[in-house]
Amino acid sequence: MEREKGMSRRDFLKISASLGAGLAIGASGMAAIGKAVQPAELAIADNGGLTTEERIPMYGEHQAGIVTPQQTYMYLVSFRITAADRAAVIRLFRDWTKFADLGTAGSSMKSGSNPQLPPSDTGETLDLPAAKLTVTFGFGSSLFLQDGKDRFGLASKLPLYLQDIPRMPRDNLDPLMSGGDVCIQVCAEDQQVAFHAARNFIRLSTGSAAVNWLQEGFISGGGGKTPRNLFGFKDGTANRLHDTPGGYDSVVWAGDGEPDWMRGGSYMAYRKVRMLLEVWDRSSLADQEDTFGRYKESGAAYGRKEEFDEVDPSQLPDRSHVRLAKETKQLIHRRGYSYTDGVDPRTGNIDAGLLFVSYQRNPEEQLLPMLKLMQSRDALNEYAVHVASGMFACPGGLREGEYIGQRLLES
Amino acid sequence: MEREKGMSRRDFLKISASLGAGLAIGASGMAAIGKAVQPAELAIADNGGLTTEERIPMYGEHQAGIVTPQQTYMYLVSFRITAADRAAVIRLFRDWTKFADLGTAGSSMKSGSNPQLPPSDTGETLDLPAAKLTVTFGFGSSLFLQDGKDRFGLASKLPLYLQDIPRMPRDNLDPLMSGGDVCIQVCAEDQQVAFHAARNFIRLSTGSAAVNWLQEGFISGGGGKTPRNLFGFKDGTANRLHDTPGGYDSVVWAGDGEPDWMRGGSYMAYRKVRMLLEVWDRSSLADQEDTFGRYKESGAAYGRKEEFDEVDPSQLPDRSHVRLAKETKQLIHRRGYSYTDGVDPRTGNIDAGLLFVSYQRNPEEQLLPMLKLMQSRDALNEYAVHVASGMFACPGGLREGEYIGQRLLES
Repeated sequence: MEREKGMSRRDFLKISASLGAGLAIGASGMAAIGKAVQPAELAIADNGGLTTEERIPMYGEHQAGIVTPQQTYMYLVSFRITAADRAAVIRLFRDWTKFADLGTAGSSMKSGSNPQLPPSDTGETLDLPAAKLTVTFGFGSSLFLQDGKDRFGLASKLPLYLQDIPRMPRDNLDPLMSGGDVCIQVCAEDQQVAFHAARNFIRLSTGSAAVNWLQEGFISGGGGKTPRNLFGFKDGTANRLHDTPGGYDSVVWAGDGEPDWMRGGSYMAYRKVRMLLEVWDRSSLADQEDTFGRYKESGAAYGRKEEFDEVDPSQLPDRSHVRLAKETKQLIHRRGYSYTDGVDPRTGNIDAGLLFVSYQRNPEEQLLPMLKLMQSRDALNEYAVHVASGMFACPGGLREGEYIGQRLLES
Repeated sequence: MEREKGMSRRDFLKISASLGAGLAIGASGMAAIGKAVQPAELAIADNGGLTTEERIPMYGEHQAGIVTPQQTYMYLVSFRITAADRAAVIRLFRDWTKFADLGTAGSSMKSGSNPQLPPSDTGETLDLPAAKLTVTFGFGSSLFLQDGKDRFGLASKLPLYLQDIPRMPRDNLDPLMSGGDVCIQVCAEDQQVAFHAARNFIRLSTGSAAVNWLQEGFISGGGGKTPRNLFGFKDGTANRLHDTPGGYDSVVWAGDGEPDWMRGGSYMAYRKVRMLLEVWDRSSLADQEDTFGRYKESGAAYGRKEEFDEVDPSQLPDRSHVRLAKETKQLIHRRGYSYTDGVDPRTGNIDAGLLFVSYQRNPEEQLLPMLKLMQSRDALNEYAVHVASGMFACPGGLREGEYIGQRLLES
């Protein structure tokens, strides 16, 4: 049924034409569709060194960008929907889906044949391949209910655990950098490719949504090694514990009891954690290692030899980060990035830290107790401040022809 | 003579030891020196996939990072010197040089043997190679003369053309993001490697300098193609015109009449140019192409076929960017990056644009007339605002054992 309501490639082209200029489709699996439309509306984008390996399929049981191995760059864009009704939301989500389809395939909407119109693509990736671009959509609780108001008739489809992260003891949140009706996570191996997608989602939202915030992050492509955060410690070692299909089912993918559209989805939690680098850099190696409960260079937990050796919490300092993380006996799937936002003009200190991003099937059980425990007792609190927050329900994966949120908006 | 006053590898290790913790030197050409010091003070950093190709030599006739092919990331860090006297400035510059030597060789100062001291390196690149790291130092006019005061006895060595860029007709500069006594340009193929260097230069400056501003930028690694800016146009095409040793001599390298320390150096000009992406994206393709005088997709100038075909100014619109750039008949060496700084909270618009960086032997002749002309007449002004500015004199290259600025500070 959803399939029938789905957006066909032909619809897709019609929508595109209505956006203002001709649509160009790259040599990326859409050539067959190309033949069905006017040649004047089409041009083949030559995206240079495009290779299959550089593309991450957008369609499947789950959205890409969740258990996809981390790419080097991430942009998060948060929107508030300003559209008046559900039909306008649907138009926006269709346009976004279309753009995501093109971008993840390494194609571009191109200039088109009418120079008197704005180009249908901003153009900065004309020469660039897909670069493992993934686009992951999530919905905030305010899309369903805002100040008690059921804005788009979606309140009955609120997923089980979707709520803003409750206020934590040491929060120092900037509301302008937190939350949102929709959050789009864009990741790629090329920052320009990632930004291009974020920027065009913003462009396509004109009249239907406004940007709340836009945040960029990076990790270092260490060739399969666990990346290090800006404290110099490996970050994400515990992801290895659930790195199997069964592990993802038990840790990441939402299921039983969830509304249909949320099955195979996941909850994305976001915390922008500013790291007080100047304070950290003046603390001793022993203090730093005690704070995590791991050795800095090897990443092994105290009392162990290697990074992936099983952690024995009894060997770790009471308030150490890793010991507390173990205390709740819960797993989450981490997908964090570092950020550097220049210098804080008030203090002259570096404004940098961690964009903590985690995915889990049940944040109430898996994440919130962990977060609360850490914010009360974690030795890291001396060196870090949580400055922004968000929680988003990411729907299950798309079939080709479907648009993001279709099962939520149309069923 | 300068050679004798230079910092030997042994001095270098002594300085390092005095910084607080043991020094680790990677397997990168310093092994021979390693034998001369206490084993307890040394450990070999295993930097994984380090390859020769990934290193850019730091020593030579010119500083690296000027005519070096552009790496993907750049951080610019601007400092104001707070040191009381010239001796303290020398200590700082020695420390910076030592760190640059290690970083560009893909080595790290490491944790050292005493866990009760802060690690001598922040550690986030322990597993990473040099990634073509380059470090380029430049001095602002305020290092020589500040409010008429000869702070460090350097006024007589002011280079010929060093002055702040004069106020331009459409400037809207943020003084907190402009200028500085010293600017360090750090570039690398890995953002974490670049940030690591910037951050450690800041760390090493404690007590001797304070950060004014820190700005990051990126380009897309298009495999030898001219990168596109965020307007979707190719940027830097004209660099090809002087891409020979003779061309660099006539365009980039300072020479005749300059103080000794400045020979083989260059003037770095910096303009942070905010691009009004939302306005741009709503303008027609014809308007966009008229603004540059080039075709968007190919990069060819009006009336030409290919990007590198010679420009015929008479074919370009009067106020087009490329026509005005040609009008002064001057060349500069461009090394710009894009930046994305999130969303402007006042307007909800994207805060992004171009970090214009150019190197030239004589900015008074090559750059200022061009800038003035453009700020008065360039069609681009409708879509861009200059928000920060800087001009720095980058000394000539270093010999091994020398520290940056030595010929300025000691001769």
